[in-house]
Amino acid sequence: MKKILLCGCLGKMGRVITQSISNFPNLEIAAGVDMQKDSSVKYPIFAHISECTIPVDVVLDFSRPEALDSLLDYCSNKNLPLVLCTTGYSEEALEKVTEYSNKIPVFKSANMSIGINLINGILKNISAMLYNNYDIEIIEKHHNQKVDSPSGTALLLANSIKDSIPEETNFVYGREGIKKREHKEIGIHAVRGGSIVGDHQIIFAGQGEIIELSHYALSREVFAIGALKASEFMCGKEKGFYTMDDVLK
Amino acid sequence: MKKILLCGCLGKMGRVITQSISNFPNLEIAAGVDMQKDSSVKYPIFAHISECTIPVDVVLDFSRPEALDSLLDYCSNKNLPLVLCTTGYSEEALEKVTEYSNKIPVFKSANMSIGINLINGILKNISAMLYNNYDIEIIEKHHNQKVDSPSGTALLLANSIKDSIPEETNFVYGREGIKKREHKEIGIHAVRGGSIVGDHQIIFAGQGEIIELSHYALSREVFAIGALKASEFMCGKEKGFYTMDDVLK
Amino acid sequence: MKKILLCGCLGKMGRVITQSISNFPNLEIAAGVDMQKDSSVKYPIFAHISECTIPVDVVLDFSRPEALDSLLDYCSNKNLPLVLCTTGYSEEALEKVTEYSNKIPVFKSANMSIGINLINGILKNISAMLYNNYDIEIIEKHHNQKVDSPSGTALLLANSIKDSIPEETNFVYGREGIKKREHKEIGIHAVRGGSIVGDHQIIFAGQGEIIELSHYALSREVFAIGALKASEFMCGKEKGFYTMDDVLK
Amino acid sequence: MKKILLCGCLGKMGRVITQSISNFPNLEIAAGVDMQKDSSVKYPIFAHISECTIPVDVVLDFSRPEALDSLLDYCSNKNLPLVLCTTGYSEEALEKVTEYSNKIPVFKSANMSIGINLINGILKNISAMLYNNYDIEIIEKHHNQKVDSPSGTALLLANSIKDSIPEETNFVYGREGIKKREHKEIGIHAVRGGSIVGDHQIIFAGQGEIIELSHYALSREVFAIGALKASEFMCGKEKGFYTMDDVLK
Repeated sequence: MKKILLCGCLGKMGRVITQSISNFPNLEIAAGVDMQKDSSVKYPIFAHISECTIPVDVVLDFSRPEALDSLLDYCSNKNLPLVLCTTGYSEEALEKVTEYSNKIPVFKSANMSIGINLINGILKNISAMLYNNYDIEIIEKHHNQKVDSPSGTALLLANSIKDSIPEETNFVYGREGIKKREHKEIGIHAVRGGSIVGDHQIIFAGQGEIIELSHYALSREVFAIGALKASEFMCGKEKGFYTMDDVLK
Repeated sequence: MKKILLCGCLGKMGRVITQSISNFPNLEIAAGVDMQKDSSVKYPIFAHISECTIPVDVVLDFSRPEALDSLLDYCSNKNLPLVLCTTGYSEEALEKVTEYSNKIPVFKSANMSIGINLINGILKNISAMLYNNYDIEIIEKHHNQKVDSPSGTALLLANSIKDSIPEETNFVYGREGIKKREHKEIGIHAVRGGSIVGDHQIIFAGQGEIIELSHYALSREVFAIGALKASEFMCGKEKGFYTMDDVLK
Repeated sequence: MKKILLCGCLGKMGRVITQSISNFPNLEIAAGVDMQKDSSVKYPIFAHISECTIPVDVVLDFSRPEALDSLLDYCSNKNLPLVLCTTGYSEEALEKVTEYSNKIPVFKSANMSIGINLINGILKNISAMLYNNYDIEIIEKHHNQKVDSPSGTALLLANSIKDSIPEETNFVYGREGIKKREHKEIGIHAVRGGSIVGDHQIIFAGQGEIIELSHYALSREVFAIGALKASEFMCGKEKGFYTMDDVLK
Repeated sequence: MKKILLCGCLGKMGRVITQSISNFPNLEIAAGVDMQKDSSVKYPIFAHISECTIPVDVVLDFSRPEALDSLLDYCSNKNLPLVLCTTGYSEEALEKVTEYSNKIPVFKSANMSIGINLINGILKNISAMLYNNYDIEIIEKHHNQKVDSPSGTALLLANSIKDSIPEETNFVYGREGIKKREHKEIGIHAVRGGSIVGDHQIIFAGQGEIIELSHYALSREVFAIGALKASEFMCGKEKGFYTMDDVLK
C-alpha cells in the first residue's frame, strides 16, 4: 500500500481526490495539508507541510503556486517524489521545478486526464501523415463560466499537431465573411454553454471521409484519477522530470 | 401523374433531379430546358422555355437568375405554378417574383432540404422558452471549397432563433482571448474541411443538460427531393407565395 | 418567495435539490422531512411530515413509495399542491394518486428533465409526418451499473413515436446476422459504459439527409432543476393532474 | 507518371476510380479491362486482360472473383504488382493469392479506406492499455439496404480490439432486459437507416471520461482514393504480400 501526502486536501480537487482514492486498492491518503479544518475527513490534516511527520511515499499537490518552495524543500529533504497538479506557476517557478528535477523525481503535466494525454500522443503520431490530404479542425466545448478561449487543452492539442507537421500552419479561431479555407489553417472553435465540463474533438476531414478523435470529460473525477495514477506511478522513481506521457508508456 | 417542365435540366442539380424522379411515383419530367444538348436524356429538351409546347402541371427551375423573366412570362401565360430553386437573385428580381405571386402560384425557399425546414420550424417554437435557462450555440460544417462563412443555412437558423427571442441577442463567430460568455451571445462556428456536404447542429446548453438538434446532408440528392416534394405540392395550387413551411404543414 | 416542504431531503436527490435551490430566486426550502438527521442543513428537518407546522406553498417529494399515504393526507388537509418525484409506485398507489387529483393539484411525470420532456413533445409532433420517408433509430447511453436495458426514458420516447404513427411499428433491440432492415422497425440501441449519466439520441435517417434530436444529461442536477421548475409551476394551481408537458406549455 | 491497368473499369467502383484519378498527379489510367463498352471513356478498354499490350506499372482490380486466374497469370508473366480490391474470394482462391505473393508483389486489404486502416492501427496500440479502466463499445451506421449486421468493418475493428486484450472478451450485439453490463463485454450496435454510407465509432467509456475514435465515410470516393494510394505505393515493390498497413507506414 503506497501512502500519499495530499496538499490542498480541502480544496475542490482535494475533496474529489479524497473520494476517488477508493478506486485505487494500492493507494491511501496517509495525511493532508490545508489551512482549513474539517473534522469529517478521516486522515490527519496539518496546517503546513513542514509539520507533517507521518511517513509517505509520494506528495500530491493541488494547492496554490505560493506553496511551491515549501513543497520542493520538503520533498528534497525527505527524498520524496512530487506530483504537481497546481496551475498558474510563474516562469521563474517553473525553472525552479526543472532545477529540482535533478535532485528528486518531479511530475508535471499540462492536462491530468489520461484520455487527453493519450489523444495527444496519437496526434503526434498521425498528424504529419494525414496533413497533406486532410483538413484539420478542433472543436472544444466548456461551461459558460470559463474565461479563456480556446481552452488550454485545445491549445495543447493544436500545438502538438502544429509541431509535428513540417510545413507552416496557422490557427484560426472562427470564420466570418467571404474567404475560402486555406489548407494551412487549423480551425479552433470554442463553444461555451451551460455546465459542460470539457469536450475536445479533433477532426481530420478528407475527400470522402472524416477521421475524428474525441474526448469528453464528464466530471472533475477524471482529473483526480489521472493525478492518482501519476502518484502511483511516481512512487519509487529515480530523480528526473516526468509527464503523463511517461505514465502512459 | 403530374408532369414537370425542368429548366436547367443538364446542370448539376438538373441531373440529380432527373435521377431522383424515380422515387416519386406520381411525378414525371415531361420536358426540359437547357442550352446544352445530351441525347442520353429520355425527355425532350428545348433550348428556350418559350419553345416548349408540351403540356405540364408545374415548372421547376434550377437554371440561372437571368432566366427569371422568361419563366414568369411562360408561367403567367399558361397559368402554371413555378418552383424557383435558383439562387443569387437581385433585390429587384425578388420584388418581381413577389409581384407575380399575385397572378400565379410561386414557390421559393431559403433551403430546399425538408430536414432543415423542419428544424427551423422547431426552433421557432422552442427558442423563446429555452432562452432564459440555456445558452445557444450553432456549429456548421462544410467542404473546404465553400466561400461564405457562416453558411446561409446557419444564418437562416440563427435568425429564426434571434427573431423568436424577445430580448436582444447577438451573433458571435468565434472566440479567442480572455472574456466570459455573455448570455445574449449566440455562437456560430463555421468548420471547413474535406468534402463535407453540409452539417448543422444547434446546441441548447443548460445546467446539467444539453438539448441538440442536428441535420446532416449526405448528398445533393436531399435538395432534389425537397424540390420534387415542393413541385408535387404546388400542382393545382391557387396564386400566392409559398415556401417549404407550406409543404411541411 | 414560494416555500417548499422537501420530503426525503437527506437522500441523494434531496441533497441535489438543496444545492440547486440557489438557482431559483423565487423559491426556498422552508422545511424538510427525513428520518435521518444532519445538523449542517440550514432548514428544519422533521422525522415525519405530520409534525411539520411550518407554512409552505408546495410539497416536493423525493422519498419512498411507502410515504404516499401520509403525503396525500397532509396535502389534502392543508390544500397544498404535491409534486411526486418518487418512482416505483404500485398500480394501486397510482390509482390513489389519480383519485386525489380530484381534490388537490398533483404533479407526476415519467422523466423530470425539461429537455427530455421537450424532445418527447417534438417527437409526438413530427414522427408521423417523417415516418414514410425516414427510418427511425434510437441510441441511448448509460453508465455500466444500470441494470435495465433499454432505459425507461428511451422506452418513453420510443412509445411516443410508435403511438403517433398510424401504421404498425416494432422495436428492435440490436442486429446480428443477414437480414435487411424492415421499414417498420424502430431500432433501440443500449450502450453501457463507464460513468455516463444518460444520453439519448433519436435518428431520422432519410435519402440524403439525417435529422437528429439529442439529449445529454450531464449530472443529477438536471432532474433537480426539473423538479424545482415543476414545484414553482404548481404553486397556486387548481386541483387536477399535471405533468411536465403542462410546465412546458 | 505511373500507369495503371484498371480491371472492371466500367463497374460502379471502376467509374469512381476513373473520376478520382485526377486527384493523383503522379498516376494515370493507361488502359482498362471490361466486357462492357463505353466510348465516352478516354482510355482504351480491352474485353480481356490478355489482350492488353499497353505497358503499365501496376494492375488495379475491381472486377469479379472469377477473373483472379487471368490477373495472376498476366501479372506474373509481366512481373507487375497486383492490387486486388475485389471481394468474395473463396478460401482456395485466397490461398492462390498467397502463393503468388512469392513471385510478384500482391496487395489485398479488408477495408480500402485510409481512415479505417489508421483507426484499426491505433486500436491495436491502445486497447490493451485502456481495457482495465474503460468499457469498450462500437456503434456502426449504414444505409437501410445493407444485409449484414454488424458490418465487416465493425467486426474487423472489434477483432483488432479483442486480439490485443490478454483477457477473454465477448461481443454483445444489443441489450434488452434486466442485466448489468459485464466488463468483458464489447457492445457492437448496428444502426440501419436511410442512405448512410458508413459510420464507425469506437467508444472507451471510463470513470469521468470518454475517449472516442470515429470514422465517417461520406461517399464511395473514399475507397477509390485508398485503392489509388495503394496502387501508387505498389509500383516498383518487391514480391510479397502487402496490406493497407504497409501503405500507411
